[in-house]
Amino acid sequence: MSLLIDGLQYANWSEKIFRQMRKGGVDAVHVTITYHETFRETVLNIERWNRWFELHPDLIFQGRNAADVALARETGRTAIFFGSQNPSCIEDDIGLVEVLHTLGLRFMQLTYNNQSLLASGCYEAEDTGLTRMGRAIVAEMNRVGLVVDMSHSGERSTMDAIEHSARPITITHANPSSWHPALRNKSDWLLRALGESGGMLGLSAYPHHLKDGSACTLQSWCDMVARAVDLVGPTGVGIGTDLCQDQPDSIVEWMRVGRWTKTIDYGEGSADAPGFPAMPAWFHDNRDFGRIRDGLLASGMDATTIGGVMGGNWHAFFDKSFGPQVATSVRERRAAE
Amino acid sequence: MSLLIDGLQYANWSEKIFRQMRKGGVDAVHVTITYHETFRETVLNIERWNRWFELHPDLIFQGRNAADVALARETGRTAIFFGSQNPSCIEDDIGLVEVLHTLGLRFMQLTYNNQSLLASGCYEAEDTGLTRMGRAIVAEMNRVGLVVDMSHSGERSTMDAIEHSARPITITHANPSSWHPALRNKSDWLLRALGESGGMLGLSAYPHHLKDGSACTLQSWCDMVARAVDLVGPTGVGIGTDLCQDQPDSIVEWMRVGRWTKTIDYGEGSADAPGFPAMPAWFHDNRDFGRIRDGLLASGMDATTIGGVMGGNWHAFFDKSFGPQVATSVRERRAAE
Repeated sequence: MSLLIDGLQYANWSEKIFRQMRKGGVDAVHVTITYHETFRETVLNIERWNRWFELHPDLIFQGRNAADVALARETGRTAIFFGSQNPSCIEDDIGLVEVLHTLGLRFMQLTYNNQSLLASGCYEAEDTGLTRMGRAIVAEMNRVGLVVDMSHSGERSTMDAIEHSARPITITHANPSSWHPALRNKSDWLLRALGESGGMLGLSAYPHHLKDGSACTLQSWCDMVARAVDLVGPTGVGIGTDLCQDQPDSIVEWMRVGRWTKTIDYGEGSADAPGFPAMPAWFHDNRDFGRIRDGLLASGMDATTIGGVMGGNWHAFFDKSFGPQVATSVRERRAAE
Repeated sequence: MSLLIDGLQYANWSEKIFRQMRKGGVDAVHVTITYHETFRETVLNIERWNRWFELHPDLIFQGRNAADVALARETGRTAIFFGSQNPSCIEDDIGLVEVLHTLGLRFMQLTYNNQSLLASGCYEAEDTGLTRMGRAIVAEMNRVGLVVDMSHSGERSTMDAIEHSARPITITHANPSSWHPALRNKSDWLLRALGESGGMLGLSAYPHHLKDGSACTLQSWCDMVARAVDLVGPTGVGIGTDLCQDQPDSIVEWMRVGRWTKTIDYGEGSADAPGFPAMPAWFHDNRDFGRIRDGLLASGMDATTIGGVMGGNWHAFFDKSFGPQVATSVRERRAAE
């Protein structure tokens, strides 16, 4: 069986969920460890993961590079790769990019819906693209091997990141807006540019990103996968379920509101439906990836493409993304300029 | 030529000093990166080191394990191993032990002269040994491979650490008090216990630790090395110069006073001589280790013991100290109890 990798989850983790990862044969998961937390608060979250790694070494371990995915498969465990959905964790300090990479961070979104120090979020009225600091941080992320994730960014900022980044970027959890129009989904032209640049799109199973929301059928979702493969290319598409299993609704409020406003922002929800939406019938937890694989087979997709979408493409992307960019020093690069 | 390792320096680092390390053929140095700094402040110091590593990859790189010392020799560079002289960097949070180890910390003193959350310093009137948190932290340091350093601790606390630690501890920079009585030097009985436990003593060239201070002769120092070898054993003695090259006197005040008092504490100095003392004539910087080696040869020490003292013993100690203690989980250890 080909590798199975989920490009984004933010669950209320527990031994139960780690066991479900094993039951589902999930080799690797990119987990969100921080949203609006400061650096010190993010380190507290890492400490919590360190305890889980210490308590459950038979189920999970910290992934640092692509080889760890193969190691996970060989040893019957799930490799956990850290990511941040907002740059709050680096505060205003470029030196924290390398520090967090050393602590295992492998993905960082430049924005989460709002304007950040680095770029514009998809909910801002104006998208002014990468800021001065944004360009500096992308270069530093490129240098150390921390992947730029633009899932919650505006389209211009995302295009700026694709063009400015010396290494391919990713949108870990979003769908084509031509399938389901939503501020968080991405336009066809952007997805084509992502694919041409060698980037990766992780397709979401989060109801607000789905046609017909929680009622979205597996067949409709699999047709969308085929459409995404046409747009991004067969090696540029993976899965990023955005699974928020077992989270209380207070967490979706933290995601949306953080500490940036004293009023409620409903984000993709509404005053009538402020909490987490119900997941679609065909995907509730890590044991359900087999259904997606079967759905893709039933939709007529070829086995090679399915293997890529289910994990092979993420694995190849990890392999080219997490190591240092070049072995030369700043002095050598300056001399070469 | 055998390996050359310095078990402690706290210089005002610069390209000049890194070049002197190369001229002196120094394969590895344990550098102090923090005294009274909080975790966040310690991370700022790590960021400064990361810049030096980026700017001077032909001279230095970050050492993480014993193999990096051999790599340094092979590639003509100096491996830099991080240490803390006080536990301020872990604040009141045991989870920071593993986080700082991941960031490369390899030594941590449990105290710096004063009582800490963990143990008693050598300047306290009462030494009450390891605290409750001290015992928990030593066990966690053992688990991850962060070495307990008792250079500035009281004798009872040091003995407690030797007895409580499941892995050998070190005194990275101190001399026998039977050679030169000083609160910072260690008694013969303690040094014998250190040797019997497989621990390491790094011998200091800092004038306050020397007989006759700055006027100490190389011959007297080499006679002291032979005495230390008799006490600790031929494989338990190395060098820990305590070189504070190019530091302004404001730094020795920070070391002694930190933020714990509003009055001046002169530590090993005095109101008449509050600053850094002049180094002995035979050791000014990293180019002078050859003089120490020649002095030991002239003193009649055998070549094997000299090779151990100059670096071989530290290398063997690094090899057994920096990796994880056991591969078993907390659950497995609980089950085994």
